[in-house]
Amino acid sequence: MVKKIEKVALFGGTHGNEMTGIYLVKKFLKNSHLLDHSTLQVFPFLSNPKAIQLNIRYTEIDLNRCFAPEDLGNLDHVLYEQLLAKTIHQKLVNNQINFVVDLHSTTANMGLTIILSDTNNFHLQLCSYLSLINPEIKILYYGSEEKKKLLRSNTELGLSIEIGPIAQGTLDATLFMKTEKLIYNLLDYLDKYNQNQIDKISHNLVFYEVFERIDYPRKGEEIRAMIHPNLQFNDYQPINSGDPLFITFDGETINYQGDFTVYPVFINEAAYYEKGIAMCLTKKREITVGL
Amino acid sequence: MVKKIEKVALFGGTHGNEMTGIYLVKKFLKNSHLLDHSTLQVFPFLSNPKAIQLNIRYTEIDLNRCFAPEDLGNLDHVLYEQLLAKTIHQKLVNNQINFVVDLHSTTANMGLTIILSDTNNFHLQLCSYLSLINPEIKILYYGSEEKKKLLRSNTELGLSIEIGPIAQGTLDATLFMKTEKLIYNLLDYLDKYNQNQIDKISHNLVFYEVFERIDYPRKGEEIRAMIHPNLQFNDYQPINSGDPLFITFDGETINYQGDFTVYPVFINEAAYYEKGIAMCLTKKREITVGL
Repeated sequence: MVKKIEKVALFGGTHGNEMTGIYLVKKFLKNSHLLDHSTLQVFPFLSNPKAIQLNIRYTEIDLNRCFAPEDLGNLDHVLYEQLLAKTIHQKLVNNQINFVVDLHSTTANMGLTIILSDTNNFHLQLCSYLSLINPEIKILYYGSEEKKKLLRSNTELGLSIEIGPIAQGTLDATLFMKTEKLIYNLLDYLDKYNQNQIDKISHNLVFYEVFERIDYPRKGEEIRAMIHPNLQFNDYQPINSGDPLFITFDGETINYQGDFTVYPVFINEAAYYEKGIAMCLTKKREITVGL
Repeated sequence: MVKKIEKVALFGGTHGNEMTGIYLVKKFLKNSHLLDHSTLQVFPFLSNPKAIQLNIRYTEIDLNRCFAPEDLGNLDHVLYEQLLAKTIHQKLVNNQINFVVDLHSTTANMGLTIILSDTNNFHLQLCSYLSLINPEIKILYYGSEEKKKLLRSNTELGLSIEIGPIAQGTLDATLFMKTEKLIYNLLDYLDKYNQNQIDKISHNLVFYEVFERIDYPRKGEEIRAMIHPNLQFNDYQPINSGDPLFITFDGETINYQGDFTVYPVFINEAAYYEKGIAMCLTKKREITVGL
């Protein structure tokens, strides 16, 4: 049972070219009353000022892979983002933050996605509440080994919001406003939770669990295929064995081979080409969550 | 009257994060027979190898603004792209290239656009032919003072192909294949032209002429508004005085004020935020072109 959530940190610009979160945080820094709630203190932060200024994802290493405890404690890790991670972590500790919201965007058609590293009951109740208010929201459980490296893992409770499709270095007003509304709904929930005002109903929550990451077909380091047109922008849609995944530059189709229905996400995310990820495969889950 | 077009240069990666052109040129470098035509020699080139490797638009200065004769002749201009421009220019001279095709992509919804710096009769005849084969093609005449700085201006004849919407650093298979087909059609035309095999018919050609560039509303250097949702992805659609252009971060709509119908393009192009361009306004033109 989680006690009160009194201090929330809201991060934008963890990746410096994901402008939706950056301009939302800038808006909140100028208009702090928008975040006012009687039982909550909300701290908006711009995570990576140098990358934001340069309009690039990161300057030396992906900041959102620098938060593993062993990395934070390693005094020989002195790349810019490694140093930044230590400072951000210290800021969270000093401010006694107990909930982190990290704002991201993606070139994949993932709509309004909440990403969890942990399916604890508090997170699931929160997601149920938000899904009831806005059925468009998708819940993604991404509990890989990498999760401890993420900014959202600095506190026991926290999540990322991922909005797309949106090109790096651009703003999309519709997606900006959807993300803003989700933030308000999320803060409302935490405020109500603190005051025991959450209605007690149960809800069937659908979420998607990442279980595998697929790279582009390559020859050496060079990719030799693209996402197949049938799959492009079709995040969260079912695919089965024999369905097309890729098309090579010469026009040859490469199909999915698998034993069960999967639901790809992060399809054609720009920042994942260098990470060797063409898409993440998920399984669809449904559970009953008591509010 | 243009004589024969015997040597064509085909550039990809003039901007290092526009992958459609880069991977098309890589495909042609590996499969040169795809460009074979009896009266043509076609040279595929990767323009900016360093920017391509880093997956960024440019390393120091936009290569596609470095080709003005006074810049090419200035031996004190020694930024990487300025040096590169001199070399590319020399390569064009040495190879006696008489037609340049420069492949670009945009985050704006410009579909398959041919951009001309010059509406000479040869260009218009070529565009008429290509439009008849594929009515989806849009023709954009962008004859600003900047035109002499562009790669496509190195030869009297030449054009850019602009494909979108596509996020920087990604490939879209559908748009890749459309661009590839357009290249083949273009080369077919040049080959037919050289052999006097162009059918003589006249055609009404619609093109769009850029006459103004509009910046985002700003406070100091900081943008204070986004492209309005009604306008996002609506390139080449008419707008009139009173139609929305922007929405501020606070939700206030800013309308277009003007005396006549205009057709915006390059709406929300990622690379143009830093150039102070939110969109380019065009006038729609229609002329009869005798083939």
